[in-house]
This record gives sequence, C-alpha cells and structure tokens, in this order.
Amino acid sequence: MDQLKAKIRELGEVREGNILKVDQFLNHQLDVELLDAIGKEFFHRFQHAGITKILTIEVSGIAIAVMAARYFQVPVVFAKKVESQNLDKEVYESKVYSFTKQREYIIRVSRRYLTKEDRVLVLDDFLADGKAMAGLLDIARQSGASVGGIGIVIEKGFLEGGAELRAAGYPLESLAIVDKMDQDGLVFRP
Amino acid sequence: MDQLKAKIRELGEVREGNILKVDQFLNHQLDVELLDAIGKEFFHRFQHAGITKILTIEVSGIAIAVMAARYFQVPVVFAKKVESQNLDKEVYESKVYSFTKQREYIIRVSRRYLTKEDRVLVLDDFLADGKAMAGLLDIARQSGASVGGIGIVIEKGFLEGGAELRAAGYPLESLAIVDKMDQDGLVFRP
Repeated sequence: MDQLKAKIRELGEVREGNILKVDQFLNHQLDVELLDAIGKEFFHRFQHAGITKILTIEVSGIAIAVMAARYFQVPVVFAKKVESQNLDKEVYESKVYSFTKQREYIIRVSRRYLTKEDRVLVLDDFLADGKAMAGLLDIARQSGASVGGIGIVIEKGFLEGGAELRAAGYPLESLAIVDKMDQDGLVFRP
Repeated sequence: MDQLKAKIRELGEVREGNILKVDQFLNHQLDVELLDAIGKEFFHRFQHAGITKILTIEVSGIAIAVMAARYFQVPVVFAKKVESQNLDKEVYESKVYSFTKQREYIIRVSRRYLTKEDRVLVLDDFLADGKAMAGLLDIARQSGASVGGIGIVIEKGFLEGGAELRAAGYPLESLAIVDKMDQDGLVFRP
C-alpha cells in the first residue's frame, strides 16, 4: 500500500531495539484519512472471506478495526489487556509476552462476543514476533470461531511472526512489510 | 440522541457501584454503525466550532474519536494511561483518580501533538465525576490549545461532572444523560 509506505518513510522513526516509532499517525496521534484508506484496503483484500466480526487488541488495534468494520458492516471485538472490574467473568483468555514492554500479560475476550458461528478477521497495527497475534488466534480457537484472515498494517519482515503464520497456512495480508531498518532508513519488501 | 438511548435501554446493564455496563456495543464489542452515527452527531453539534484536533483518552474514547474525526477531517490524539517505552520524553501529563479502578493514574500526551495553535474537541465515552475529563482539560490548558467543545456519549447526570463543566462555561454536549438508574431501569434527562 503505497500511501502507507510513503507515510512510514516520511514520519517513521527507527529506534534502538527494533522499534519503529509511528506515533505521529498510528499509535498516539491518528491520521484518520490514512486509517480510512487502510480500512478500505483490508476490505478490498478480504471482502469475499465471509467475515462476521473483526477481532483486535487494545489499544492501537482499535482505530484500525473500526475503520475497517465500517466497510465490512460487522462489529468489532477488542481483547482487553488489563484486569477490568466491568469485564464479564466468563472470558476466553491467553497469555502474551511483550518484548516492547518486557513482561507477560493476559488478554481477555468475553465469551458473549465470540462464538463458533463467527468468522473473524484479526487486525493489528504491528506484527513482529507474533506473540500478540498468537494470543488472539488462541482466543479465536477457544471460541470455535474460524479465521477468515489476518490483516496487519506494518509487518517487521525481519522477525519470525509473519513467516510462521504464512507457514501455518493463515491468509495473512500485511500492508507494509519492512525487511530492514536502521539509522540509514527502511527497506520495504517489494 | 434517540438511537443511542434505545440501545442503552436494550443492552445496558446496571451494576452495583453506579456502573452502567455497555460492553455489548461501546466498551468491548463495538457497534460500528452506532459509533458512526455518534460521530456524525458530534459533527452536527460542533461543526462550526473551528475544531482542528480531537482529543480523547485510551481505551474507549478512541473508537468514538476516530469515527467523529472522519466527519471533521482532523487528526485524533489520545492521551495514554500507561508508561510506554515508545512515548516521547517531552509530554504534558496530569493525574487522574479512577473510581472504577480505585486508583490514581497518570495520563500523558506528547508535546508534539498538541500546541497553542490547536482548538480541540474533547470526546469520551462516559462522564461521571469528571476526573478523566479534568485531566484532559488540564493537558489542553498546558499545551495552550483552546477548547472548542466537549462531547460525551453517556453522562451520568446524577454525578457532579457534567454540572461542574457547564458551570465553568464549557460547551458540553452529552448524547444521553442518565439521571437515575437502578435495577428497575434507567431514566434519561428529557
């Protein structure tokens, strides 16, 4: 997706520890025109996949998921990362290790909002080592929902997550795959 | 906003401790068609306020803010609640006490994304005691941005937040104001 790659080149900042900082348009300030184009692109790629629900994870997945959901005309469910008083007791849960935050956390989805009748499109902002995505897929598996597709805004192609998901047969679409990044700049997969 | 009030009556659950649970369409599963209508309604009410940016707070404000921002054609900035490795060092911050979570937390916005040139619409899902909103307004004040309006999806009219903001002269629009709620049901302000 050229518009996205141009934005990453223009505004992305490469930091130590394989961090690509895109706070200016995706993770803190949100470029809503770009998000809308991203949502439309996911619809274009998965419109024939029979999607009934979009599954994502708080926080940064939410804006992407709702913009895509407008095109699919389906609800969004986002996995919660923190213990919440208000959450149902009946939940699917899965453990995720975050390299960015260097700790393990539990993600949860209420059993009420994901069932075996659902066919989900799983969306997230980044795919790196694939730990968060593995947690979301685990939750989908527990619910009996089928996975109609996985959509990622930025894949770190030099890490294992994407290769593993493709090898496992998942229909994975990443709108921008970064194969190399350092202080000299970014190399996108053609 | 009748569509919203009908949805709250149909799917909202009143819990102990003045909790109105709307997980089914606003806080965990997201009814994107309703969110789009909410965004459009905020645009209708604030379209002449000269808004340059929408300010909200993670997590539940994000979906509302991006849907509204599509109509305003302005960016969103969401305040972060947790320490994040990736956040800029140069931030505005404010302390907020959460009654729901029964603890104090710090909210932060990067100085890069809010300046005195901005005129913000501050959006959130709930307004209760007004502590989170006070934090957002404090951050706007620190940045020098002016406040063009405050938009709330559900105001708990039996708590102080809304009355205090109106008394202080803020242009506050709440799409549904609950004046009373208990096991027998909800009473909306006419």
